[in-house]
Amino acid sequence: MEKFEVHILGCGSALPTMRHFPTSQVVNLRDKLFMIDCAEGTQLQYRKAGLSFSRLGSIFISHLHGDHCFGLVGLISTFGLLGRIAPLHIYSPCDDLERLLRPQLDYFCRDMPFPVVFHGFSPHVPEVVYDDRTVSISTLPLKHRVPCCGFLFSEKPKQPHIRRDMIDFLHIPLHAIGRIKAGEGWTDADGRFWHHDQLTFPPEPPRRYAYCSDTMPVEANLPLLQGVDVMFHEATFASDALARARQTGHSTARQAAEMARGAAARRLVIGHFSSRYDDDTLLLREAEEVFPEVVLAHEGLKIEV
Amino acid sequence: MEKFEVHILGCGSALPTMRHFPTSQVVNLRDKLFMIDCAEGTQLQYRKAGLSFSRLGSIFISHLHGDHCFGLVGLISTFGLLGRIAPLHIYSPCDDLERLLRPQLDYFCRDMPFPVVFHGFSPHVPEVVYDDRTVSISTLPLKHRVPCCGFLFSEKPKQPHIRRDMIDFLHIPLHAIGRIKAGEGWTDADGRFWHHDQLTFPPEPPRRYAYCSDTMPVEANLPLLQGVDVMFHEATFASDALARARQTGHSTARQAAEMARGAAARRLVIGHFSSRYDDDTLLLREAEEVFPEVVLAHEGLKIEV
Repeated sequence: MEKFEVHILGCGSALPTMRHFPTSQVVNLRDKLFMIDCAEGTQLQYRKAGLSFSRLGSIFISHLHGDHCFGLVGLISTFGLLGRIAPLHIYSPCDDLERLLRPQLDYFCRDMPFPVVFHGFSPHVPEVVYDDRTVSISTLPLKHRVPCCGFLFSEKPKQPHIRRDMIDFLHIPLHAIGRIKAGEGWTDADGRFWHHDQLTFPPEPPRRYAYCSDTMPVEANLPLLQGVDVMFHEATFASDALARARQTGHSTARQAAEMARGAAARRLVIGHFSSRYDDDTLLLREAEEVFPEVVLAHEGLKIEV
Repeated sequence: MEKFEVHILGCGSALPTMRHFPTSQVVNLRDKLFMIDCAEGTQLQYRKAGLSFSRLGSIFISHLHGDHCFGLVGLISTFGLLGRIAPLHIYSPCDDLERLLRPQLDYFCRDMPFPVVFHGFSPHVPEVVYDDRTVSISTLPLKHRVPCCGFLFSEKPKQPHIRRDMIDFLHIPLHAIGRIKAGEGWTDADGRFWHHDQLTFPPEPPRRYAYCSDTMPVEANLPLLQGVDVMFHEATFASDALARARQTGHSTARQAAEMARGAAARRLVIGHFSSRYDDDTLLLREAEEVFPEVVLAHEGLKIEV
């Protein structure tokens, strides 16, 4: 199975604690790295996770609160010191981020050998913000105190696996394999036609990862999320703080679990824990009652999608 | 002895490593806290050191390189979340810092219940930037690639200690003690005059702490530093990288030790270690050859001045 992993670099909320760093994650899809959110300390956590700086090409910022983007300038500055030359693409809602960061980049990272390219997107409707041969990344409009989007990583459909036994049996030459993988059949020396399905095994179904933070529950996204393999959903509070969650544009652990159940997700990861909880298992217990396939995020956690 | 401590929160240089955080220190003088430099991750290290957020009133930034100031916006934002109301004063060379930070503060910390007051100072001549009843803090012009100053913390002369035995013997009333501490003598019931020195022990001599980073050695500062109790001096490189040190405006461990010897410092602390050294004791050995009273900075180190 090709690599599709999510690394949790930080899963606390705004107030830093001794237990959690604020939000950042890295998605590793076939050794291409994508960052989601970049709070203070992210570059340190990135190093601790043993991730390669040179394989990171794009950063997706969910919203412009400090605990989701204060680590950008330090990370970019470090890229400069390391001699990066590949462009770095940063995606964020609306167009404020470049205005806020550019003066600091111009001042602190004057002679940077690589360009930083900012891309704004609308926080109101889902849109594809990144697309390549292996993955499509689209936004998930969320409901927070400021414009905010989650991200849905959808692996592209893969090619089928060639049946080695049939290739050998029919003496199919190497140069024909590509066309068969792409969907063609094969006519052997006796003129007999072998159908594509006789020559291949079907590929693994493409996998999907959804990131939903910071947000109140958004049922409107459920159709987009149906059957998602892994859903990360924020669970800042427990249910006894439901009023506080509503007031601050966050979710309870129960609400996160209800979203996972509504989406028929395979697995749920909860995070963005409020600093008020000394023991996050309280949140886990609450989510488990609604959706059993749930784990607590923690710094250093690696999730296989 | 009244508290005069230096807490090392970070003592690495620009490239973060697994061993060191970038630069920040906190000076605790009689439970009033002063921060020197504020790199990314400082607020986390501050918490780890068990320091009180509410006792910090002033931050002194040596120069505007990212590894000395990227933690400011996160720290200020956290102060806002914690409901701080006391003004926060930030001192830095020239006047660029406010221009660079203000747009971010206005955006990310909109409803902050406390003011951030920026103070610029000249990087060219020593000047007193802070002065209260207990301490005077002056700048030490340094030689780096950009305008840069160190800081000299000079404790104010203390009042003498009252000789309890003499007070009892002469039945001196409580209300007279303040005047005696301030320098007066006492005439007893028989009309005999007791000199101030007969009624008191001399106070401990005032202590001084000097912070010198980032910089090449600056002999011009030696007169100001004569007899300093503790000198922190950067030692980014070992002597085999002397050319690199000169080129980047840094010092070798030997040069740091020579500065301490030239200043007849009581003790030297070296830090701001380059990420190229896996083992900083190499730098310690080099400094010790010139100045034996030297220690390596490390995160969590607390130095009694």
